[in-house]
Amino acid sequence: MADKSEKMKARLPRGFVDRSADDIRIVEKMMARIREVYELYGFEPVDQPLIEYTDALGKFLPDQDRPNEGVFSFQDDDEQWLSLRYDLTAPMARFVAENYEKLPKPYRSYRSGWVFRNEKPGPGRFRQFMQFDADTVGTPGVAADAEMTMMMADVMEALGIKRGDYVIRVNNRKVLDGVLEAIGLGGDDNVNRRLTVLRAIDKLDKFGPEGVRLLLGKGRWDGGAEGEGDFTKGAGLDEAAIATVIAFTEAGSADAATTAENLRAIVAGNARGTEGVEELAQIGALAAAAGYDDGRVKVDPSVVRGLEYYTGPVFEAELLAEIPNDDGQVVRFGSVGGGGRYDGLVSRFRGEPVPATGFSIGVSRLMTALKNLGKLDTSDVVAPVVVLVMDKDTESLGRYQKMVAELRRAGVRAEMYLGGAGMKAQIKYADRRGSGVVIIQGGDERAKGEVQIKDLIEGARLSAEITDNAEWRAARPAQVTVPEAELVAEVKKVLAAQAEERAKQ
Amino acid sequence: MADKSEKMKARLPRGFVDRSADDIRIVEKMMARIREVYELYGFEPVDQPLIEYTDALGKFLPDQDRPNEGVFSFQDDDEQWLSLRYDLTAPMARFVAENYEKLPKPYRSYRSGWVFRNEKPGPGRFRQFMQFDADTVGTPGVAADAEMTMMMADVMEALGIKRGDYVIRVNNRKVLDGVLEAIGLGGDDNVNRRLTVLRAIDKLDKFGPEGVRLLLGKGRWDGGAEGEGDFTKGAGLDEAAIATVIAFTEAGSADAATTAENLRAIVAGNARGTEGVEELAQIGALAAAAGYDDGRVKVDPSVVRGLEYYTGPVFEAELLAEIPNDDGQVVRFGSVGGGGRYDGLVSRFRGEPVPATGFSIGVSRLMTALKNLGKLDTSDVVAPVVVLVMDKDTESLGRYQKMVAELRRAGVRAEMYLGGAGMKAQIKYADRRGSGVVIIQGGDERAKGEVQIKDLIEGARLSAEITDNAEWRAARPAQVTVPEAELVAEVKKVLAAQAEERAKQ
Repeated sequence: MADKSEKMKARLPRGFVDRSADDIRIVEKMMARIREVYELYGFEPVDQPLIEYTDALGKFLPDQDRPNEGVFSFQDDDEQWLSLRYDLTAPMARFVAENYEKLPKPYRSYRSGWVFRNEKPGPGRFRQFMQFDADTVGTPGVAADAEMTMMMADVMEALGIKRGDYVIRVNNRKVLDGVLEAIGLGGDDNVNRRLTVLRAIDKLDKFGPEGVRLLLGKGRWDGGAEGEGDFTKGAGLDEAAIATVIAFTEAGSADAATTAENLRAIVAGNARGTEGVEELAQIGALAAAAGYDDGRVKVDPSVVRGLEYYTGPVFEAELLAEIPNDDGQVVRFGSVGGGGRYDGLVSRFRGEPVPATGFSIGVSRLMTALKNLGKLDTSDVVAPVVVLVMDKDTESLGRYQKMVAELRRAGVRAEMYLGGAGMKAQIKYADRRGSGVVIIQGGDERAKGEVQIKDLIEGARLSAEITDNAEWRAARPAQVTVPEAELVAEVKKVLAAQAEERAKQ
Repeated sequence: MADKSEKMKARLPRGFVDRSADDIRIVEKMMARIREVYELYGFEPVDQPLIEYTDALGKFLPDQDRPNEGVFSFQDDDEQWLSLRYDLTAPMARFVAENYEKLPKPYRSYRSGWVFRNEKPGPGRFRQFMQFDADTVGTPGVAADAEMTMMMADVMEALGIKRGDYVIRVNNRKVLDGVLEAIGLGGDDNVNRRLTVLRAIDKLDKFGPEGVRLLLGKGRWDGGAEGEGDFTKGAGLDEAAIATVIAFTEAGSADAATTAENLRAIVAGNARGTEGVEELAQIGALAAAAGYDDGRVKVDPSVVRGLEYYTGPVFEAELLAEIPNDDGQVVRFGSVGGGGRYDGLVSRFRGEPVPATGFSIGVSRLMTALKNLGKLDTSDVVAPVVVLVMDKDTESLGRYQKMVAELRRAGVRAEMYLGGAGMKAQIKYADRRGSGVVIIQGGDERAKGEVQIKDLIEGARLSAEITDNAEWRAARPAQVTVPEAELVAEVKKVLAAQAEERAKQ
């Protein structure tokens, strides 16, 4: 026996969590619905292991001093570095490159699973979380990107999110590149200034156009007026350049054709920018042809998230519904997934251009949203019937065992109480399990070949109504005694009545 | 663009594999059926992250020189060691210990997921594989163990394995301990000799009782006669002790009561052994009461796997069906899961006795068996209808896009061809995807507001029958042209005919 003084503390490393029955069941439902949409679009499931060679994952290369920067890494027997995947895209790229000749092309596939980030965890930020991705490899045409945006919209609706409560926003890295080139921020020397401009645009929701203007120019004081609060250094653009960037962010319109028109004017004369605008126009046209221009898919130049990573179109699924956050404030929930075109990822392995596009759903984050919106619940999971153990000899246990076996054979979720406690504790256990029905057979019932069936839900209702103790005893609430042979039929009757009652609520 | 000479090799670390669409779909089906059985028994899903503190996992403690012995381990920022879980039981024990007060007790739960072993991989041995476990914590009564064995049997049948094609074997560590004590191998000094005895018993299937006798005594020559082949040193038992061990392995009988009777005689006078026999007798009686003594659950003293690890009853699910192995030999498939009572695991954290029992299904191994047995297939997955791209202008793409959108809305799996290839290559693509139907609309059809629907399966059948080229052209096999508005209805008709044809085969 373990010594109390020596016992080990049961605890989890920070950033990792256990999942409850409720969360697991909701995620199962979600995944099934997402999977159905992906399948409908002709995507095939294929998945990769959680561990890859670190260099195959790219981006984060381990260094000897601190091998765990960003990713969880460890050395294999042969000294090669391995890492836990930090997303599903990099392993997918490795898989497609490795099996390129065998795959039908363009190659549509989907995958879900855990990914890991060796980062500082925070509220809603975990070091292990789940993604559900779809990718198309082997086509440069933006019809593939258009398909992604429509599929994302269908996923939202399959999850019960009403049209108008979400939007799939589309932008294009090339257009932004064109804008940046036009204002003299092209080339390798301007990487950092470009980043500052991107970060400034990303603050549009938070600070409005005036705030963004300051961030694009000299900088911005947190408190508003000069000298108030912290100072954020700006990108140092001149007035004309600032006006161009602001015009770019404001080019969005309800229909994609008008948006494209506005953008064309802004990047006029810049080849890369113009290419990007035409791609956006085509995505808009394809979405419109299929009827997705009704607010589901929207070209929106203010989307900048991921623009550093992607090489062409980018998209983001945003929930417009207002949901209480962790602090109880009602806020727009925001992004639940995103993606874009990443033409370099597979090419790294192939030494030839392999265009690809895809998107990723943040499963845990989306689940939180759906729970808050009441879109997916688990009230259809019925707690098990509990057969109480009144006598503990093997023969009696055998009889109780037979009862649960019969109930299960009839499709009724049932358990025999397995502890050593008395009747009161057993009823308490059934209560804790959320059970609606318990079965009792003590010596008296057994002698008569009968069983008692207690309806705990009706019992609780009656006991709330009956205040007088004598009245309670007389009522013998919600309890019937039937011959053993009628056990299953009678239990099913009680469960059906309870289900009807629940449906009414 | 990546330079061909600098490209990185796409490869996986050894012991890790990608999963195919087929395997993923079969595992999904399997898991759904296993889950249904667990739910029916009142178990609740709860799962733990893939990373735990190394010391919480127990067993393998990392050493500085070689932190990866057996498990994948890495140090966190705060210097604490983390590991990837090597099974689902140790994390479950941590979870239950951490949340003990909040859980209903006895606590039944189930979980599935990937586990990792940092070992040398081999054929059928991977460094990442999937388990699906069920556990009951908080009851010392063997009714919980009996329940496990019956649930395992129900799982086998839910997966389509016929009664008689599998057996759940049950043994008890305490009985073996009793036997070993009775022959003078009790106590800490005899750990190694006990292990040698266990290993000898485990060879019963391979070498028969005579071979085991040699391994229990002086030792055994691989070639049979003295001096032939390699020599395996024996446990060095005397004749009487050997007879006792052999009697123990041969104590099994068709019914549990007779087996218990035989075992009682062997361990007579030994308290621990007798306790074990009575537990086995009770498990047998409970299984019999529920009708599982018809060959589904069998008390079998020759089961020794896991006896070192477990503290009381052990069980093993064995497929009796004969299946071709990787070398094409038809062999008994053997174990697909096992478990037992592990009373020390949760106690480590609690400093008080917390009895527990559970079992684990090796998902990947079981999947291999089910595939070989033809029990689970994916022939119900219909490949997508492919809408060919005859014209590549945005307006035409929009029209094709509208067609796939309409098909999907009607629940038909459909994709628009996304590559840049010509018609022949597109048909080849559809073929590679296994598609039964392609949709064609070129300039002519478009002008008339029509679409062509090609039945590729009927087409292939006809082309196999028609040998003459002129005859082929005249037949225009399996192809209809309908007005655009009838596209969905006509495609559904073709798919229904194909489904009917498949069902006939």
